[in-house]
Amino acid sequence: MEDFNKLEQTQVAAEANIQTQRQDEQEHDPESNTLHEPLLKVNRTLSSNQLAIVGGKVSHIESLDYEINENDLFKQDWRSRSKVQVLQYIFLKWLLAFLVGLLTGLIATLINLAVENIAGYKLLVVAKYIEQKRYLAGFVYLAGANFLLTLVASVLCVCFAPTAAGPGIPEIKAYLNGIDTPNMFGAPELIVKIFGSIGAVSAGLDLGKEGPLVHIGCCVAALLGQGGPDKYRIKWRWLRYFNNDRDRRDLITCGSSSGVCAAFRSPVGGVLFALEEVATWWRSALLWRTFFSTAVVVVVLRAFMEFCKSGNCGLFGKGGLIMFDVSGVSVSYHAVDIIPVVVIGVIGGVLGSLYNHFLHKILKVYNVINQKGKLHKLLLSLSVSIFTSICIFGLPFLAKCKPCDKSLLEASCPTTGREGNFRQFNCPNGQYNDLATLLLTTNDNAVRHIFSINTPTEFHILSLSIYFALYCVLALVTFGIAVPSGLFLPIILMGSAYGRILGIAMGSYTKLDQGLYAVLGAAALMAGSMRMTVSLCVIFLELTNNLLLLPITMLVLLIAKTVGDCFNPSIYDTILELKGLPFLDAHPEPWMRNITVGELADAKSAVVTIEGIEKVGRIVDVLRNTTHNGFPVVDAGVVPPNELHGLVLRAHLILALKKKWFLRERRRTKAEEVREIFTSADLAERGGKIEDVIVSDDEMEMFVDLYPLINTTPYSVIESMSVAKAMVLFREVGLRHMLILPKYQASGVAPVVGILTRQDLIAHNILCAFPQLEKSNASKKGR
Amino acid sequence: MEDFNKLEQTQVAAEANIQTQRQDEQEHDPESNTLHEPLLKVNRTLSSNQLAIVGGKVSHIESLDYEINENDLFKQDWRSRSKVQVLQYIFLKWLLAFLVGLLTGLIATLINLAVENIAGYKLLVVAKYIEQKRYLAGFVYLAGANFLLTLVASVLCVCFAPTAAGPGIPEIKAYLNGIDTPNMFGAPELIVKIFGSIGAVSAGLDLGKEGPLVHIGCCVAALLGQGGPDKYRIKWRWLRYFNNDRDRRDLITCGSSSGVCAAFRSPVGGVLFALEEVATWWRSALLWRTFFSTAVVVVVLRAFMEFCKSGNCGLFGKGGLIMFDVSGVSVSYHAVDIIPVVVIGVIGGVLGSLYNHFLHKILKVYNVINQKGKLHKLLLSLSVSIFTSICIFGLPFLAKCKPCDKSLLEASCPTTGREGNFRQFNCPNGQYNDLATLLLTTNDNAVRHIFSINTPTEFHILSLSIYFALYCVLALVTFGIAVPSGLFLPIILMGSAYGRILGIAMGSYTKLDQGLYAVLGAAALMAGSMRMTVSLCVIFLELTNNLLLLPITMLVLLIAKTVGDCFNPSIYDTILELKGLPFLDAHPEPWMRNITVGELADAKSAVVTIEGIEKVGRIVDVLRNTTHNGFPVVDAGVVPPNELHGLVLRAHLILALKKKWFLRERRRTKAEEVREIFTSADLAERGGKIEDVIVSDDEMEMFVDLYPLINTTPYSVIESMSVAKAMVLFREVGLRHMLILPKYQASGVAPVVGILTRQDLIAHNILCAFPQLEKSNASKKGR
Repeated sequence: MEDFNKLEQTQVAAEANIQTQRQDEQEHDPESNTLHEPLLKVNRTLSSNQLAIVGGKVSHIESLDYEINENDLFKQDWRSRSKVQVLQYIFLKWLLAFLVGLLTGLIATLINLAVENIAGYKLLVVAKYIEQKRYLAGFVYLAGANFLLTLVASVLCVCFAPTAAGPGIPEIKAYLNGIDTPNMFGAPELIVKIFGSIGAVSAGLDLGKEGPLVHIGCCVAALLGQGGPDKYRIKWRWLRYFNNDRDRRDLITCGSSSGVCAAFRSPVGGVLFALEEVATWWRSALLWRTFFSTAVVVVVLRAFMEFCKSGNCGLFGKGGLIMFDVSGVSVSYHAVDIIPVVVIGVIGGVLGSLYNHFLHKILKVYNVINQKGKLHKLLLSLSVSIFTSICIFGLPFLAKCKPCDKSLLEASCPTTGREGNFRQFNCPNGQYNDLATLLLTTNDNAVRHIFSINTPTEFHILSLSIYFALYCVLALVTFGIAVPSGLFLPIILMGSAYGRILGIAMGSYTKLDQGLYAVLGAAALMAGSMRMTVSLCVIFLELTNNLLLLPITMLVLLIAKTVGDCFNPSIYDTILELKGLPFLDAHPEPWMRNITVGELADAKSAVVTIEGIEKVGRIVDVLRNTTHNGFPVVDAGVVPPNELHGLVLRAHLILALKKKWFLRERRRTKAEEVREIFTSADLAERGGKIEDVIVSDDEMEMFVDLYPLINTTPYSVIESMSVAKAMVLFREVGLRHMLILPKYQASGVAPVVGILTRQDLIAHNILCAFPQLEKSNASKKGR
Repeated sequence: MEDFNKLEQTQVAAEANIQTQRQDEQEHDPESNTLHEPLLKVNRTLSSNQLAIVGGKVSHIESLDYEINENDLFKQDWRSRSKVQVLQYIFLKWLLAFLVGLLTGLIATLINLAVENIAGYKLLVVAKYIEQKRYLAGFVYLAGANFLLTLVASVLCVCFAPTAAGPGIPEIKAYLNGIDTPNMFGAPELIVKIFGSIGAVSAGLDLGKEGPLVHIGCCVAALLGQGGPDKYRIKWRWLRYFNNDRDRRDLITCGSSSGVCAAFRSPVGGVLFALEEVATWWRSALLWRTFFSTAVVVVVLRAFMEFCKSGNCGLFGKGGLIMFDVSGVSVSYHAVDIIPVVVIGVIGGVLGSLYNHFLHKILKVYNVINQKGKLHKLLLSLSVSIFTSICIFGLPFLAKCKPCDKSLLEASCPTTGREGNFRQFNCPNGQYNDLATLLLTTNDNAVRHIFSINTPTEFHILSLSIYFALYCVLALVTFGIAVPSGLFLPIILMGSAYGRILGIAMGSYTKLDQGLYAVLGAAALMAGSMRMTVSLCVIFLELTNNLLLLPITMLVLLIAKTVGDCFNPSIYDTILELKGLPFLDAHPEPWMRNITVGELADAKSAVVTIEGIEKVGRIVDVLRNTTHNGFPVVDAGVVPPNELHGLVLRAHLILALKKKWFLRERRRTKAEEVREIFTSADLAERGGKIEDVIVSDDEMEMFVDLYPLINTTPYSVIESMSVAKAMVLFREVGLRHMLILPKYQASGVAPVVGILTRQDLIAHNILCAFPQLEKSNASKKGR
């Protein structure tokens, strides 16, 4: 016995010795002394603001969780999955991809049909009034029709689905990055987006259906994945495999590429768009699946076009799968053409970043207006509609009439109907008004006119300048109003106009066709504003069906993007930032190597831990007083070191409370007991709210065995890891919570130093807490 | 004092109590009891075989390390990097991407020029002999020329760079996955690949220059990135930023896409090929950079074509940027055409997987032959060359002569020169031999002939069948010989022949052109063998310049890939497996969820740890007796728990020995001391061999302070994590070593349970060690 005592004494003495030795080390650690000190004084705590602007109002956002949750119940579920179930899963995965493509294709056709017919008949009537020289009546009719259509779109948006306003692409991008914004992918959003988009585009507003179609594709995917609208979900057993964030993410990626494909009839472009701009995580299996979806979309679109060719679809039907065909032109370019190409690219980059800059300012103003209430939103949309109507009807009067080219057939110039390149408008017979050709038509047709090749004299530079100026203004004022609106088309319109102006200005310097200038201008402005390269290149390739353009398109895109990147971030990043969505960049900032996760964790409030077998009262308490979504489970042993068991999710705690999974005494439960109460399907559901849980005072004194619910293997890092390195893990693996462990698990040290979430890793938030880092903030362009 | 003693006693007692309690828990843990037991009995240890077949012989391979190494010296280096240096890095990154594109473009032009001229003049002479009916002389000349050209290619390959044989794409794919095979990206490989490829393609062998061009692009990238060949490296200061595995990986990705682009003149296809097939890690910043490289390649190619159009390049010069232009045909397809399209796809998938199957068998045989020595390799190549010559000269005699179509000009049929669709060969005037048209020409021209549109009667089904059968045999026997050889062209040749046969067989059922059948057949066979989708689609789009084909091409590709996937893995995966390269798949197998990393670690030999301040003798000992590349640093404290300080790399240990960084006593060193001895550039170098290090007996007794060299924050996981989950981390973050920590760091437990490397996570290796898992091995198709 004495021997034993002695041993203990030496042990304790040795421990104490080590303890002091460690302190010694910390003081004399060469690294921490010379390098750390100047940088890291915490000014204020790291705030974890979980709010963002969604659909014009401030909402609570949540992070998604792509980590494999290894708790007993899920483990049991995987192990019991038979081969048949795996096959069911695979079958369903492909079936859903097919359905997403099919439905997106059908909806896109519906929208096209509706828009072409509504806008077409509207313009036909207006053209008739003009033919009779009843200009005022024509204007009243046009403005009235546009007003009504805008009203419908806007009322739908404002009253039923505020999140359906705008393009939706930034929110989708955020979703695929791991940020769940509320009410984005529901049934009301889908319906409002469809009909709102039809209304807004038919109303002649300066917006496209491209962005909305992407959102529609994602809504379709999300609804299919969960088996229907929130309230009327089909509880098909097979669907339960898809009730997790990972599979939902993949489906929505399919949806977004189907949407782009449907918008531009560009299957490869759609896949690449999803890959380059929208998706954060990608793997080649997904490439294949999205490609399948877009293939289905294309087949659907083609089938309808085939069907409509015979005149079954009213005014819809012209134009094949390629929207703005410029394949007729024989492109030949030489070394001298490099100069105009570079000029187009540079100007495109500058204009694109200017557009981003001003749009940012205007969106800020609009945000203030929109937050004042529904009526303000409506009034804003309607005033933009009236302004647009006045401009598109009034401005053509400023343009000079041009005599028709004699070489053309009499029937084709001047044209009086709905379509045609040479609109008569207010001109005498034998002459045409080139501005009216561009303005009094649908936006798609305007693009077709302005892309038209072998028409060097068709448009006067003055008309094009008026057109360009008008659409710059319209593109800025229209985007933020409360209707579904895409960004692609306004930018294409602006870009093609400036390209054509440049083409005329270049005069006889090059032999490039003016239509090509327009195409290149559009591409340049897109790259200058959206900062995409490969996907834009393919989309333009598929839009214009001219492969010979590829090399110069590539150059223009690269130059425009490079120039634009010198000034400001891309339009989508700007919007993401404006909305306060915590988007996690792929590339950590260089200065993130100079700060450790431990220091970040210190700047946060202390981590809240739970015991493995915990009192109900404490759980309720913790859930009510915190907003955290994950809690480390630590057993405070009688002696240190404490033990970390893992992480338990808020949703699972609430579930345990709801199911009244309470024990009278502190004990571990049997696996069978637990499995009777919780199914893995239950666990996969998003949890309810703690406010809905009612626990009696008696129950408060009881216990919950959390062990079966604990994710026993959360990804964790050591406190001395730099933020840059930890961020690689966080982003690549797609985490929601990252546990920070102490460097040395000595006695008396808490087994968890902290938990980092997405918000804590956002550069802006870190810089707010550690302003000293800003000094060493090397340029962000080091991608 | 007594109180203190008492406290200790209670503490110790409590500790013992917890200890037993834990054992108790383990026994009664509901999960481990019911679920684990039946699965996990270790049969034999997990072997970590670091060998693979590279260039026909068994070589030692290494893993690459993409982890950010956070040791004191590197940290100091980053912190001291100024803004100027960051800009230098960015500038150099783009400069290198530009140079990669430029050089790859130039080399591709050189190869094209050489091949067209050598093969062209060879065929001209043969054609002259045939015109004079001197068939034997013609044959001797042809066979002799082919023999010599093959000899050159083969001797170069066998003697100077064995790794230059074959396409090189599997090795590149492995490299980008994190496996470094020796002698893949050096200067000898580059040179041999260029001239070997010229020789082999001119020799009329059934192989392409596409694969070799990809390898050439990668070699160029690797050489530029390291500043020249191994022995004559430029020690430019700027280049030191690129001396890490991550930047090298990005550069080589650029190189591979430039190579594809140069091979097919397909810039977007090149980017997508790199993305879909070759690269493992990808981010959109890299997308942009590879796109830039391919843009440069296209500009270089175009410039040369412009230059050659005026006849400056001998026989080279015809054909623009699009290789097999079929844009002239007006594609119209209807619902009935779906059947032939499906048939093409299904047959393509079946044929593709059959091809993979047989190629696998033949490569196994060839491996045996090739390993016998250089002479055997040479003889094999030369016999294939002779066999090819016999076939392409002899078989046309079997074909019937066909009378020329009267509607054609007299000059164009029959043709006697080097090119032309209607070769006279042995036929009387006014007739032509369709098989000679296909065989006695370069492979590129053969594809052009067989893709030709509006020529439904040009080829007889018998000739096509002979052609198809011949090229099936040739494609199988040619691939494994010791010359640089690509897989694309043989597959395109086979596929287009079978497509055209199918077109003829379909007869009047559809109105699809036979040229289109050939294109679709080629696409189907490619997808059936290589299992790519989006990139093939774009490559075919860019090859044939016909966007209207897109929807059916997509369908054919999807069907062929799906059918092929039912039978066997893709051709590249087959080759990877055959070579024994431990390729890490994106998707963990389902059964990997049923085994923990701790169990894997148990199946390995015990982990070798080092102390923070270690005796030189022990380090030398450890390095000599193990092959591990990383060692955990653990200080065995006087009492447990031991402390884990991090991971030290073998290369850094060797460096410390080489630099004689020895201390007389056990002490921590000052940061300044260390920095004088090791620069971060030293650390970035790949270490030498332990055999080269000479340490005297005196020195053996001294100490090394390893602290400044330790990566203090290695990524680590807990032993209870499933292999599937750990693999996500390993693959997404790109690790070389993954530390496994014990679940509970109690006293007496080692702080590191084990280290897992790439080899340990390969499904095959795990199944060998745990055969029981095989039973639960659900199908692999759950991607």
